[in-house]
Amino acid sequence: MSRFWSAATHGLTPYEPGEQPGLDNLVKLNTNENPYGPSPKALAAIRAAADETLRLYPDPDAGALKAALAAHHGASPAQIFVGNGSDEVLAHAFLGLLKHESPLWMPDVTYSFYPVYCGLYGIACRRIPLAADFALRAEDYFPRAGERAGAIVFPNPNAPTGCLLPLAGVERIVAANPDAVVLVDEAYIDFAGAGASAVALIGCHPNLLTVHTFSKSRALAGLRVGYAIGHPDLIAGLERVKNCFNSYPLDRLALAGALASVQDGGWFEESRRKIMASREALAGQLRALGFEAPPSAANFIFARHPAHDGARLAAALRQRAIIVRHFNTPGIEQFLRITVGDDKQCAALIAALREILQTD
Amino acid sequence: MSRFWSAATHGLTPYEPGEQPGLDNLVKLNTNENPYGPSPKALAAIRAAADETLRLYPDPDAGALKAALAAHHGASPAQIFVGNGSDEVLAHAFLGLLKHESPLWMPDVTYSFYPVYCGLYGIACRRIPLAADFALRAEDYFPRAGERAGAIVFPNPNAPTGCLLPLAGVERIVAANPDAVVLVDEAYIDFAGAGASAVALIGCHPNLLTVHTFSKSRALAGLRVGYAIGHPDLIAGLERVKNCFNSYPLDRLALAGALASVQDGGWFEESRRKIMASREALAGQLRALGFEAPPSAANFIFARHPAHDGARLAAALRQRAIIVRHFNTPGIEQFLRITVGDDKQCAALIAALREILQTD
Repeated sequence: MSRFWSAATHGLTPYEPGEQPGLDNLVKLNTNENPYGPSPKALAAIRAAADETLRLYPDPDAGALKAALAAHHGASPAQIFVGNGSDEVLAHAFLGLLKHESPLWMPDVTYSFYPVYCGLYGIACRRIPLAADFALRAEDYFPRAGERAGAIVFPNPNAPTGCLLPLAGVERIVAANPDAVVLVDEAYIDFAGAGASAVALIGCHPNLLTVHTFSKSRALAGLRVGYAIGHPDLIAGLERVKNCFNSYPLDRLALAGALASVQDGGWFEESRRKIMASREALAGQLRALGFEAPPSAANFIFARHPAHDGARLAAALRQRAIIVRHFNTPGIEQFLRITVGDDKQCAALIAALREILQTD
Repeated sequence: MSRFWSAATHGLTPYEPGEQPGLDNLVKLNTNENPYGPSPKALAAIRAAADETLRLYPDPDAGALKAALAAHHGASPAQIFVGNGSDEVLAHAFLGLLKHESPLWMPDVTYSFYPVYCGLYGIACRRIPLAADFALRAEDYFPRAGERAGAIVFPNPNAPTGCLLPLAGVERIVAANPDAVVLVDEAYIDFAGAGASAVALIGCHPNLLTVHTFSKSRALAGLRVGYAIGHPDLIAGLERVKNCFNSYPLDRLALAGALASVQDGGWFEESRRKIMASREALAGQLRALGFEAPPSAANFIFARHPAHDGARLAAALRQRAIIVRHFNTPGIEQFLRITVGDDKQCAALIAALREILQTD
């Protein structure tokens, strides 16, 4: 605390990211990173961009990247906003599009950065409970007589549960709230299979914004690139906030690497296909060990064991140099969120859990 | 405008950065980029970092970079904050440290992003006139009886004038306002010569924060790295805001490149020495053409010609493929802000101006 802080700063409760330990030889399954690495073409593009032109500012409008993303998604560049990771995109959206007189609605179990943004920008929020099986029920987001949502935000698949709301459910929420922005955070959608993304609805619903990241399916968590897709009016609002904050959020290397990643469709498809296959295998193995896990449409599995405490399991794994994410949050404190790693990492996890369950 | 925007978004007036034209063969003297390029060691470090580890998140605390900056400045890592360009550092400082009940004081002619941040975060500001020769007078920042500054911000050297307030003047402002944060934006201080930086005062004044960039003296505008130095309590306030906004503002490549740049002291010294020498030569040539220019301590010259309109001069230069910055701002609309380029660029500028002045 300091008398020099602004009043708002005193009241902040920062987000706590999963740790990034410096140790080698860890099986790191705690922050949903992609085991297969980025497209070699993205790496080559970055190396090529690491030249004397770094003395020049980047393109503040990221024109080439927006054009490539627009082509990839069948959208127009005016429907694309890019930022320094999807967290920056979300931050600008909270301030520019989700802050209204009525509260912002969000699930009670969800990405824990959302309430942090609400605190930063003074946004009132209403937490809507998930079903007992962690399903997000579309009808819980239909306004009753006399009420309205200021805006709505949820991840799909949800975090940290991995549960998918099918596209029809998303559309029912968007259609039931035509005067409210509905932000669907699709950080994990590329692992959900065909037909799941709400990008398909953008053209019909001017109140829908989807948010995406290069950190998961494109294996570029270290590059910090995210983007949003929506009606040009929503994008224009985001651009306004961005241009009052930082003219050049994406450096020249991130622009070059992200562009090449988007253009390498083959690597992207192969990477996510492998992860989806590994996820199903890993889920089966976890269930065979007695774990309960809702069906995951993401690159992680949210699992608990009815006979073993979640925090103790996480600690026992850590003793064996395997780290997973454990949230000390009421209602989910018995769960582990386990990133789907490569075959070797998954095998190490299962072997360690088998040992722990036998001795604990 | 859109009914989906938050109320605050409607009232925003974004900053307009200098243009980044895609044309080759331009003599680009409009955004104070460094003609000599980044340290080759920084480029090598970036290329080495462009590997499979980009699949992993960066260090959210930027520990290695903070340690190197601390060593460079004779500070401790707890006195260092880093961000995605100094603009992001400034943005967090405005929200976290400069927003108080009393207005924020700043010069009337200054970096035009400051009032934009005030608009974004709802900060009242008081603009304090410079002297007629653009000098910032320390005594204008001494509170009179019954008044106090909520906080104070100014660049030193000032932008876009290039005028330096000597360190004694900075200290008088800081000492006269012990209950207010004084943010000294030192984006251009590396071109001001020895003994100019207020970093020397950090240990004695817990209300002083200096802000720095890799974009000018380190020729890494394309990498987006900035930082602040101040008392650990001020840094802690910035970290709070940052951790409510984006856990990983610096990507792995920016962390690696910035670290190597800080470690290459020789390149840094040589680059800024050449620019300071070119600045003095260019200023002399401009004055010989009849231009009036206050003494510059930055990598640009702020100049007007008593017989030629500023906007017309800028347009005539552009016709000759030379771009400089012209601000359509009352009081400085006759001035050009001209980046100090390399010898060839400076010669092209002088030749073009000579031609324009003869024919206009």
